[in-house]
Amino acid sequence: MERIMLAHGSGGRLSHELIRTLFQKHLGNPYLDQMNDATLLPGRGHIAVTTDSFVVSPLFFRGGNIGKLAVCGTVNDLAVSGAIPQFLTLALILEEGLPIDDLERIIKSVAETATEAGVVIVCGDTKVVERGSADKIFINTTGIGYITDRFVGPERIRPGDEILITGTIGDHGIAILSEREGLEFKTPVVSDCAPLNGLIDAFYLPGVKCMRDPTRGGVATTLNELAEQAGVSMLLDEKQLPLSPSVEGACEMLGLEPLYLANEGKVLVIVAPEVADEVLSNMQAHPRGRLATRIGRVQAGKPGLVLIETPLGGKRIVSMLEGEHLPRIC
Amino acid sequence: MERIMLAHGSGGRLSHELIRTLFQKHLGNPYLDQMNDATLLPGRGHIAVTTDSFVVSPLFFRGGNIGKLAVCGTVNDLAVSGAIPQFLTLALILEEGLPIDDLERIIKSVAETATEAGVVIVCGDTKVVERGSADKIFINTTGIGYITDRFVGPERIRPGDEILITGTIGDHGIAILSEREGLEFKTPVVSDCAPLNGLIDAFYLPGVKCMRDPTRGGVATTLNELAEQAGVSMLLDEKQLPLSPSVEGACEMLGLEPLYLANEGKVLVIVAPEVADEVLSNMQAHPRGRLATRIGRVQAGKPGLVLIETPLGGKRIVSMLEGEHLPRIC
Repeated sequence: MERIMLAHGSGGRLSHELIRTLFQKHLGNPYLDQMNDATLLPGRGHIAVTTDSFVVSPLFFRGGNIGKLAVCGTVNDLAVSGAIPQFLTLALILEEGLPIDDLERIIKSVAETATEAGVVIVCGDTKVVERGSADKIFINTTGIGYITDRFVGPERIRPGDEILITGTIGDHGIAILSEREGLEFKTPVVSDCAPLNGLIDAFYLPGVKCMRDPTRGGVATTLNELAEQAGVSMLLDEKQLPLSPSVEGACEMLGLEPLYLANEGKVLVIVAPEVADEVLSNMQAHPRGRLATRIGRVQAGKPGLVLIETPLGGKRIVSMLEGEHLPRIC
Repeated sequence: MERIMLAHGSGGRLSHELIRTLFQKHLGNPYLDQMNDATLLPGRGHIAVTTDSFVVSPLFFRGGNIGKLAVCGTVNDLAVSGAIPQFLTLALILEEGLPIDDLERIIKSVAETATEAGVVIVCGDTKVVERGSADKIFINTTGIGYITDRFVGPERIRPGDEILITGTIGDHGIAILSEREGLEFKTPVVSDCAPLNGLIDAFYLPGVKCMRDPTRGGVATTLNELAEQAGVSMLLDEKQLPLSPSVEGACEMLGLEPLYLANEGKVLVIVAPEVADEVLSNMQAHPRGRLATRIGRVQAGKPGLVLIETPLGGKRIVSMLEGEHLPRIC
């Protein structure tokens, strides 16, 4: 491999390879090696930190825009790490010629979403590059939260744990794809883009082992990462996967696998079986978790193996995303 | 103004206007309104935060590259704010087709410079966009430092204070320009790009009122900002401005004003007159401050006015950078 390919940004196998062979090789340290959505910096600051750049195309889509996404993505990475999101930084790279009206709409969304999520934008930066040197606007948000006693992480996952998701999958991926390709559905697919810290505050109980927001690479890639990090196997139940009819229809029509589609408003939760019912009903009582459901369980099988049971009773392997079929989803 | 122009990213007047009319309007809060190089977040975390995206072109130049710059720029923003830089996040936007060798050279520089500056890269993110949607690589670094008892800020500046700079000005600007335009000088101009926290630790004394690193917009723009924020006037002495012979020659040849050229390894320091000598000799004793000198003083005149005394004894106004003659300097 001599050049960067789109798949290096997929969140799937090539992304992991790049991280291992280049970033960890040169930059590796115990913080970076946590390899979680946010890094815990215990000690004096007692904070969690995460960073994310957003390059989504198109900038505006049903259910959100790049500004809303930039706040949600970073807030969610902190929240699933067990931290309380508090502060965001906001850095913009603008292409010469960007309409200021578009910029203002985006910044308004940043402001509204930050208010909704209870975070404060504490500093910013703006760079402008010549026409043709960037695509309209790229946004980086870096988030800082305070570490709580929500001790979650893949190392806590054990065989017997249950796998929950807080709602339908694939909505963000299909919303972006349909916007980009001009696809029309009877019921338009709206991105699920939302801050999840309120939902997590509502359902969290001790006994929640691990939380992740399955964005790039989707549920399949996220579960593969967790199964690998935890050294366990996982078994999903295909008929339990919550899909909106429009997403299901789009996937059938386009030959897409919903397990690989990005979500921007869902939490995957691994939970001890004894509290699974209570966590699930907490989720369902929250407006963002009404369609929460169990989708599988953790097993003692081959470490890193994720299987899915089909409606006909067969099992197939669900691997990590290979290649990149839908770049610039976030 | 309906569209973003390059000058919106200059660090000069249009950048300030965009911040005021758009970012502060929608996002304003007491943290953001500090309007300093880093934002102090007192309270539980007791931390300082800063964010910066880097879009410099070319990626590699005499004295550094975009990776080194991305570490230095953020470390320096923390250090001039009186904080001790501790942690950096690193977010990359890569253009499809970027040679992996180039990426590796850049990441190695990030690693080396972080080690030199004593900071740890704690988390990262990589996005890839299609060929033509970005220019090779853009880097965001966000920095976190611990707040010290170095209480510095423009509100502490008083008439009678002296203005020091830790070395020659304009080196980074001319290094980038000469690389970009293929200009050759007898003695090549090398960017001054360097982490400044060690230098600041070496010269700082109580009595240092304010520190800034004069990057985009140069010394002129930085002093205008400070004079405005402090409600004071400043008088510079043109014959004291330290210039390397090559930078001086380049400025004469190209009709550039060195006061507007970017620096990436210099600190502007406003200091109480009674400790100015000691601070200056501390600077000169450090390898990065050997050419430190007094360049002017603070006066009680018209708030926000920066004047320069020419070698012939006349005075002229030094205004903030207007427009943008050299985009993508950092």
